[in-house]
Amino acid sequence: MSLHQDVLTALEREAPGLAQTDAELIATHLTDRSGYPASGVPAAVVHPTSTAQIQAVCRAVSGAGGSIVVRGAGSGVAGGATAGEDQVVLCLEHLNAILEVSAQDLTARVQPGILNGALNQMLAQQGLWWPPDPASKDISSVGGNIATNAGGLLCAKYGVTRESVLALDVVLADGSLVRMGHNTVKGVTGYDLTALMVGSEGTLGVIAEATLKLRPARTAAEVTLSAVFDDVGAAVRAAQAVVASGLQPAIMELMDEPTIRYVVDYLGVDPTDGGGAYLLIQTDGAGASEEAHALADLLAPGARSVARAATHEQAEGMLAFRRACFPAFERAGSTLVEDIAVPRSKMAQAFARIREIEAKFGVEVPTAAHAGDGNLHPIFIIPFGDQIPQNVWDAASEIFGVALELGGTLTGEHGVGVLKKRWLGDELGGVQMALQSRVRSAFDPERVLNPGKVLD
Amino acid sequence: MSLHQDVLTALEREAPGLAQTDAELIATHLTDRSGYPASGVPAAVVHPTSTAQIQAVCRAVSGAGGSIVVRGAGSGVAGGATAGEDQVVLCLEHLNAILEVSAQDLTARVQPGILNGALNQMLAQQGLWWPPDPASKDISSVGGNIATNAGGLLCAKYGVTRESVLALDVVLADGSLVRMGHNTVKGVTGYDLTALMVGSEGTLGVIAEATLKLRPARTAAEVTLSAVFDDVGAAVRAAQAVVASGLQPAIMELMDEPTIRYVVDYLGVDPTDGGGAYLLIQTDGAGASEEAHALADLLAPGARSVARAATHEQAEGMLAFRRACFPAFERAGSTLVEDIAVPRSKMAQAFARIREIEAKFGVEVPTAAHAGDGNLHPIFIIPFGDQIPQNVWDAASEIFGVALELGGTLTGEHGVGVLKKRWLGDELGGVQMALQSRVRSAFDPERVLNPGKVLD
Repeated sequence: MSLHQDVLTALEREAPGLAQTDAELIATHLTDRSGYPASGVPAAVVHPTSTAQIQAVCRAVSGAGGSIVVRGAGSGVAGGATAGEDQVVLCLEHLNAILEVSAQDLTARVQPGILNGALNQMLAQQGLWWPPDPASKDISSVGGNIATNAGGLLCAKYGVTRESVLALDVVLADGSLVRMGHNTVKGVTGYDLTALMVGSEGTLGVIAEATLKLRPARTAAEVTLSAVFDDVGAAVRAAQAVVASGLQPAIMELMDEPTIRYVVDYLGVDPTDGGGAYLLIQTDGAGASEEAHALADLLAPGARSVARAATHEQAEGMLAFRRACFPAFERAGSTLVEDIAVPRSKMAQAFARIREIEAKFGVEVPTAAHAGDGNLHPIFIIPFGDQIPQNVWDAASEIFGVALELGGTLTGEHGVGVLKKRWLGDELGGVQMALQSRVRSAFDPERVLNPGKVLD
Repeated sequence: MSLHQDVLTALEREAPGLAQTDAELIATHLTDRSGYPASGVPAAVVHPTSTAQIQAVCRAVSGAGGSIVVRGAGSGVAGGATAGEDQVVLCLEHLNAILEVSAQDLTARVQPGILNGALNQMLAQQGLWWPPDPASKDISSVGGNIATNAGGLLCAKYGVTRESVLALDVVLADGSLVRMGHNTVKGVTGYDLTALMVGSEGTLGVIAEATLKLRPARTAAEVTLSAVFDDVGAAVRAAQAVVASGLQPAIMELMDEPTIRYVVDYLGVDPTDGGGAYLLIQTDGAGASEEAHALADLLAPGARSVARAATHEQAEGMLAFRRACFPAFERAGSTLVEDIAVPRSKMAQAFARIREIEAKFGVEVPTAAHAGDGNLHPIFIIPFGDQIPQNVWDAASEIFGVALELGGTLTGEHGVGVLKKRWLGDELGGVQMALQSRVRSAFDPERVLNPGKVLD
């Protein structure tokens, strides 16, 4: 019998009726938002509705010698959820319940498929908040946020997703269930396997349930500032002065000149009046207004102009200019989004090197950055329908090299998936790559889960 | 040849002159502050002064079939650094340099032996701060704080040690060196081995260097409140109301009636005027004063009295009353300190059950709690010179059971070491214990590092 048939037979035995093999359905589960092509056609898609069903699927596929791609909402941008030949796509979108919310414990117990935005809408009604805030929050799942240790705009102040996950129910490749972590804020019994699961991109286990650490909703009014600079160097110097000042904005976003150009073209208005860089800052909490005042004073000497939103509409306008980046790029062509992070003191060098790389390879690389934490998104825009040309790959590769040279990392918040796998060894080194591989084997010795992704 | 001699020979070959075998020196490196007895006499103590020397020691001891106990400042309270027969005590106290501080990146690169208090004194001069704040900070090392994921008073607001560590240089048992983690705030390349090292109690690798995540020093004046209650139930209800209110004090500490009695006896004054429970609260940041005002209003209805410190001296007096707990206990006898954590909604039940256990076993269990995060320290006081009697062990064991029954954990911030090892399986379960053991093998298959500690 073929592997394909073995897998389907085992699934039918362990989880009767769960395997979906309809070609049209399978076609919608082949890849994620990276656009990276699937390496083959999977044997089936399954939509479990209980932890027991996840266990049954893992047991079946393991037993048959097959492999599994775990899928949340399919919003990943590193190819981590692309399907392969004869694989089973384990899609968690129907496991989307909120099981429990405790305002006294500041915790929520949820299933992995719930969307971040939907969860936070519900929590807001109780004055609560789960801080992870990726730009994709309305289309990305909590399980996916955990699997990629999703970042976003608020990380410098509120931390990455790891800081907001207390405990997980994890199904291992062989179908066994492990409840890891703690229901408490503190807990040091054994190794922190929960933190290890965060960012593991579906390669260690299947997240069947999560206990999230909540915060009280931010009730004080946020204050929003925007500043326009002559060039990105001046904007970076301003952002660095903010970090060094001890003030802690909730949001600090930077757009360079090519990015501004795309957004102005898209929106049809130019609030920067031909500016060379745009810095968006938001403060929150009890001291929001005073902090914004101090920040405006700090920015003024190096800026062409600094504006403080006087109304909610003005603040929304400032935020909208930043939020329009990706829609503007995506209207212009297919996008390849990089996600390097560098120490904040190296941001100016990173931007300067990106300009050199643009010239060297004859490509344009508009770059938006989470300036509060040194996370840059250099973007390549490829004409619709074209393959990614070699000069783009070469330029992208050289940007990875720059990130490492400056003491940074290949990926700040998107993950390795398949897109960055070939550069991972350059960052981690041989000894660590071997150790990482042994850790993977401790969870999944047969590489049933997401084989070929992240590392081998 | 004996293992003892094999180890010394190998050390002399790989790290000439480093092995110290003086009996008096060895005697000072046998145990930690738990008072737990060493299980044997080590072959040697070594004080490496470089990463290369750590590597040489690991290589030598591994090669000779020996084992290593890593030791920081010896301030642990779970027996994690107690020595064993023929082992090598790898003491990191001389590796205590601050290698680099960057105000622009909000990072510090340090050696593991530097004391938390010493580091923070130096950082304060630059307006910077490393948040981990264990009560032991003046005598505990940064490496030890990392190895135990140390907690303290500020965790509810500022997180545990894990949140303040970006990257580590780790020497594995075979002497190889792994640089793990990122110099950046965000980074998702591969599994988060840095988080896994945090809290691993010397069983996975030797921390040779750490890149710490700093915050700006807290410049706004803190505001300190104290409240006295008729009983611990009323105090817990007040603490729970604080958590549910969305206000976020930096410190919220609770002392029960037996604890107050010990401290009053020790200090010779009773600021509680015969109170049944004491709650200490501190707010900080830009909104400190307004938050304190709101908190005082919240506490007033259930409290016998609420006081707000009008001067620095008054604030210090309030804090001193809490800080006197452990000196007061330690004057009264040898102490066995438990460290359970429970969901904050279960604190009242935890205190009630401790009172029942006191009656059942005829012991007194004064209990101080980090009420902001549900971390309780039930204390047993044993007459100086006595062995720990059976009724104390039985009562301690029953308190662990209560913690688990209430959905909590055996240890919130002290670690498992040897003291809590026998209960670990009750919390983690068999499948997770096996997985934890496989993870340990991925790092240290021969169990060279801290064998017999935490888990087997």
